[in-house]
Parts: sequence; structure tokens; C-alpha cells
Amino acid sequence: MAKVNGNYLKLPGSYLFSTIGKKVNAYAAANPDKKIIRLGIGDVTQPLAPAIISALHGAVDEMADAATFRGYAPDLGYDFLRSAIARCDYQARGCDISEDEIFISDGAKCDSGNIQEIFSVDNKIAVCDPVYPVYVDTNVMAGRTGTYDAQKETWSDVIYMPCIAENEFAPMLPDKTPDLIYLCFPNNPTGAMITKSRLQEWVDYANKVGAVIIYDAAYEAYISEEDKPHSIYECEGARTCAIELHSFSKNAGFTGVRLGYTVVPKELKAEGVALHGLWARRHGTKYNGAPYIVQRAGEAVYSEEGQAQIKKQIAYYRNNANYILEGLRAAGYFVSGGVNAPYIWLKAPEGMTSWEFFDYLLEKANVVGTPGSGFGPSGETYFRLTAFGSYENTVEAIERIRKL
Amino acid sequence: MAKVNGNYLKLPGSYLFSTIGKKVNAYAAANPDKKIIRLGIGDVTQPLAPAIISALHGAVDEMADAATFRGYAPDLGYDFLRSAIARCDYQARGCDISEDEIFISDGAKCDSGNIQEIFSVDNKIAVCDPVYPVYVDTNVMAGRTGTYDAQKETWSDVIYMPCIAENEFAPMLPDKTPDLIYLCFPNNPTGAMITKSRLQEWVDYANKVGAVIIYDAAYEAYISEEDKPHSIYECEGARTCAIELHSFSKNAGFTGVRLGYTVVPKELKAEGVALHGLWARRHGTKYNGAPYIVQRAGEAVYSEEGQAQIKKQIAYYRNNANYILEGLRAAGYFVSGGVNAPYIWLKAPEGMTSWEFFDYLLEKANVVGTPGSGFGPSGETYFRLTAFGSYENTVEAIERIRKL
Repeated sequence: MAKVNGNYLKLPGSYLFSTIGKKVNAYAAANPDKKIIRLGIGDVTQPLAPAIISALHGAVDEMADAATFRGYAPDLGYDFLRSAIARCDYQARGCDISEDEIFISDGAKCDSGNIQEIFSVDNKIAVCDPVYPVYVDTNVMAGRTGTYDAQKETWSDVIYMPCIAENEFAPMLPDKTPDLIYLCFPNNPTGAMITKSRLQEWVDYANKVGAVIIYDAAYEAYISEEDKPHSIYECEGARTCAIELHSFSKNAGFTGVRLGYTVVPKELKAEGVALHGLWARRHGTKYNGAPYIVQRAGEAVYSEEGQAQIKKQIAYYRNNANYILEGLRAAGYFVSGGVNAPYIWLKAPEGMTSWEFFDYLLEKANVVGTPGSGFGPSGETYFRLTAFGSYENTVEAIERIRKL
Repeated sequence: MAKVNGNYLKLPGSYLFSTIGKKVNAYAAANPDKKIIRLGIGDVTQPLAPAIISALHGAVDEMADAATFRGYAPDLGYDFLRSAIARCDYQARGCDISEDEIFISDGAKCDSGNIQEIFSVDNKIAVCDPVYPVYVDTNVMAGRTGTYDAQKETWSDVIYMPCIAENEFAPMLPDKTPDLIYLCFPNNPTGAMITKSRLQEWVDYANKVGAVIIYDAAYEAYISEEDKPHSIYECEGARTCAIELHSFSKNAGFTGVRLGYTVVPKELKAEGVALHGLWARRHGTKYNGAPYIVQRAGEAVYSEEGQAQIKKQIAYYRNNANYILEGLRAAGYFVSGGVNAPYIWLKAPEGMTSWEFFDYLLEKANVVGTPGSGFGPSGETYFRLTAFGSYENTVEAIERIRKL
């Protein structure tokens, strides 16, 4: 008699963004005349850069000719892309990462969900609160999180690290010792950033207690301040304690193209076992490579032309972030993030919960954001807006919110 | 202290096709003058059909314009593709499958590896022997297979169903009762096919014992005989016991494009829980959709033009299969498969193991195949050749083998 993975049944409700999608669709169906502006899910709106489009067309043409057709990709990604990443994202920044430590994938969401599979179910995880739900939910599915307290909205076996106004939304070292630590900087959802010296403390701590840091650098391209690290490998000792996740979604607009990568340094071990080999085995067994045409598009991101074009695109979204930040501040909201990140984290008006503010904004301003409580209990009364809309929509959304 | 998933350490050696790749690369490096013909891994060689190329270019152009740009895809796939699949692969064949029972993915390999995650670790799996390694290895990684007997090359908690000459390489119902049954028809690696009435026996059996069949139909397009089922849903009662996996790799040449789908009927339950919801939850949490441009390419497969073009491509590979089959038979080999499948399963010459024959063919004929023993103990002394080479290479490979 087939039996289900009972851990799935412990998951409360549905995935945050599915719930939002359903609410918005229901409102839109009931109010077909309203123009809804979506600044909720972190989805980009600007078209792919010309250099990327041109690389895609070129690769498609290669697939049309037997002489240049490509079948299965190498398990871990094409060398042309892995070497471009190692050179531009690491070696150019003085980080000691080589191309055979880079694993190409179809995106940081998948990698951040799959990476826990190479670890024992007995590991205790530490996460920021609020947190990107995928980190926690995939650990729930694996049976690593204990029991759920519906009142507190927390799991018994998870170490939560509150990120609140008092600590500028950056976590303190945890009281209990974790085995796996999920960190994301620039942070989703709060938009907070960490200095290099603070990140160094985390690396030192992880090396001391033998923990592995899973460092999500998906929003790295939005860092604007000088003293902020673009990679955890800028810190001394990170090669023995950290895995880093990267996305092409937010720096190059690949949310619908699907490409990402994960770095597992060869020195990184747990119980004396090299994690590089375990991740390679998972990749080779449960995954079959990113599409050739998409990997060529990724390569184009690193071309001189591509770099110039995506810089303009990032500047466009940064300008939105700044507009939201200044506009809401002028309207009297308590806001943070938005300087080194495409996310603005604002406090709902006094007395409103996150979901109440969600409904209020949807109904009164026809603006969609993401309720902070959906990211964890410490997110309650907060709200996330993203800078990924068009400039025109961003301006209009802020106008509508200011008029409320 | 971080701890690894100890199940990974139980996996013997590396993934079969990685091992073959390393051996071939070493031989090629040592013998740069030799022209190696690869009929080992099931990778296609013909370019994408013109209708697919045109759809890809069209979708790339859409991504270049803000008005038509697409970001995150719907979790479970675009409606345009799901409805084309439901209509052409199911409803046109009289199978009662609706579009919301279809989950778009980046390929059948990933789906066949991931599907076990929604089931309890306590389930006992039954697999054919020989078998596509991914089914077993992913269950090993999940901790479902017990201990490995290196002598017998079997796992203590797996039910093996030998597929041997005596049963025409199609499994008999198992002695012990499994919870999950992996079936693949047309079969990889043996190329064997099952009749609809024999498949009906499996469906009846699964419904009787409460088992779930994971039915891999990746090679369905190669069926040439009338009485053979293209889908398990042609059988009465399959909606309450079967999940079906499909690939675009072998019918439309998508090995490097990456697209597949899985069907989970809404009636299918385990312990009273609908598996449709569990798979949707996994998809939404650990996956982020296939690229828009690739889904448009998939849609083109179902267009009138696309269908005509891929039929020609399949005929091309079928002709190769027939050439290998007849050529080896004429050379005195015992051969099977190749009629309803792109795989030919041949017996190594008397006294040779599968790997000995692999080395022999590589060194003496510079032809790469896949050792049958790599698929399981009952594959020992057998060898798999694929029909996915070019016609010219296929003819030359068979010539070389005949001359040995």
C-alpha cells in the first residue's frame, strides 16, 4: 500500500505566492475595470537585453543544423559559462573560486530548495525571520523541522534569528548552535544588507562550530554601497564553510528564462566528506542540465556589451527602489531596504496586520505587495514592495498609496 | 556540526553515463586519430524541426519587447502547452486526462528522480532488472533501499523484477508486494514493449494491492505495432493507480532543450491523500517552471507542421534501429528491442561480460555502447545500442562490428 511523505501534510496552507496569486485573481475577476499594479512577487518586467536576445537567436540557429546541434549538456554546465562566471563573478573580485566549483542550474529557487538534500535529516537549520519561504518549506518536506506551532507560526526544530528594526533587519549569531545556516544578502524580503566585517563574523562562527552556511546572493547586483560584500568568498575562511547560490533572474531579467548557479568549494566538508562530490552526484542523478540556448544567453550576460546593457537595466530598477523608498518616507511610512536591494520593507499603518494591509492596498489602491507575515512571525505588520515594476507603474502605485 | 546525507555514501561508484563518458574521453585523448562513433547514451543527433526553430525564434523575439516579455511562468506550466498535451497525447487517443492533471517540467529524468519525494521513505519499490539507473539511485539517496550487496549488485529493500530472454524482457508480477512500481515501456534499456492486455494486468494488480505505478512513457513515439499502448491511461482503472512521465527528448529531439511532463490524475490517492496536490506542492516549492521559450517550442511540437516534421525525424531514427537490428542479426548476434523502441539490446559474444564487450567495441571498432550490467545484474552479458546516431554513423558502426 503506497504511503505518502507525511511531512508534506505538516505544511500549513499553500505556498505564499500561490495564495497571493489566488487573492489577486479573485479580486481582478470581480473588478475587471480596475488596473491592478503588481509590486508583490519579485518578477521583473523589462525585456531581455539586446546582447542576450542576440545570443539566444544565435543558439537557436545552432540547434537547427546537425553540424552545430547540441544534445545533452555536460552534467554540471558548459565550460564556456562556468569559466565566464568564475572569471567575472569571482576572480575579478579577488575571490578564489575556480570554474569546476561552479554548478549551472535552472535557477536559485531550485538550488536553494534542493541543496538540503545532500545533508542528513538530523541537521538543525537556522533561518532568518522573516525568511524566503522556500528554505523552510523544503526542510519541512525533508522532515528536518519538527512540529508546527500554528499559534506562533514556528517549527519546533528550527532556530529562528529575528531580523527586526532593532538589529537593522540583520540577524545576530544564534543562541543555539545550528548545523546549517541560511543567509541571504542583500536580503529577501527585508532588503537589508550586511557589511563585510559582519559577514566575516558569520564565517568565523560557522568554521568554529562546524556549520555550513548556505549563502543566497541572488540580489548581489543591487549592492550600491562600497563596504558591502558581493560574495561570501570575499571573507577569509569561507571556502571551508560556505555554499553560495546565484541567480540570473534579478541581474539579467531571467525569471522566465531560468538560469542560476551554485558554488561548492572543494575544501568544503562535513563529517570529512567533500560536499562538492555529493552535489555533483545529486546534479548528475536528479537533474539533466540547463538548456544549451539558455546557457549561451547566460554567457552573453558576461560579454562587454551584455554587462553594459544589464547595468542600465539594474539602474532602472534601482531608480524605482529609490522612488518607492522616498515616496513612502514622504508619506510618513517607516521604510527600510531599497538601497542595496530591489526590495522595500515598510511597516503597515498602526494597528494593521500584514494581511489587513495587503487587502487594504489591493482594494483601495489596487496595488499588490507581499504581506511580511508570510515570511515569518517577525514579519508581522511589515510589508514588502518590489522595484521590479515599470517606472510608470511604480510612480502610479506610490501616488495611489500616498493619496490613501 | 553539519552532517551529510549518509545515503549518498552508499551509492556504488558514479552514475553509469559519467563512467562511460570518462572511459571514452580517456580513450579519445590517447587515440586522437580514431573516429569514435557514440551509440551509447541515448542522445539525439538530428537538428530541431523547422516548426520548433521558428517557435523558438518567435518566443525569443517576444522576450525582447516589454509588451510581450514573460517573467515567471505559471507553477505548473503554461495553459497553451498543457492543453495541447491533453488534447493530442490523451484525448485524441481516448484517454480521459485533462490539462490540469498535466505538470510541465524540464524533463522526464528530473521528474522520474523527483517523483519519489512525495512518498514516504517506508515505501517498498519494485523495479525492472535491468533498469534505468535514475529510478534506483534517487531512491537510494532518499534512504528507501536498505543495504547494498556489492557481490550481487542489489539492494536489500528493493524488489527486482528480472527482464530476461525467457520472459521477452517484460517483467512478471512480483512475488513480494511493492508499494511503488516503476515501469518503462517502450523499455529503456531493453527496447522491449508490452501489450495493452499485459499492461492491464499491471493496472489491475496495482489497484488490488494499493500500489502506485510510476509509468515512464519517454519512448512512446517509437511504438510501431498496433496492439501496444501509448499511455497507461488506455487501461481501465489507471487513473486510480498510475502516474505517467513523458519526455520531449526522444520524440522531438529536446535532449539539450529540456522539456517534459508528468500526469497525476486527480483520483489518484495514497492513504486517502490526493497525490495531485502533493506533486503540485513540490512543483511550486522546489521548482520554478520551464523557460517560456522552451514551452513555446513544446507547443510547436503539436502543431500540424510540427507533427509532420517530427514524424519524419522519428522515422529516421527508426530506420537506424532497424538497420542495427538486421545488421547485428545477420552478424550472428542475439538481438531484441528496436521494433517499438530506439534501443537495441544485444547479447555479448559467448564468454564476455558487458564491460569486457564495452572495452572490446571501444578499442577494436571505436564504437561506444552501454554495458547491460550497468542497468542491473540481469543486464550482465547484454549491451545496449541506440538508434539516435546519424544514419551514416549507424551504418559505419554496424559495418565495423560485423568485420570484427
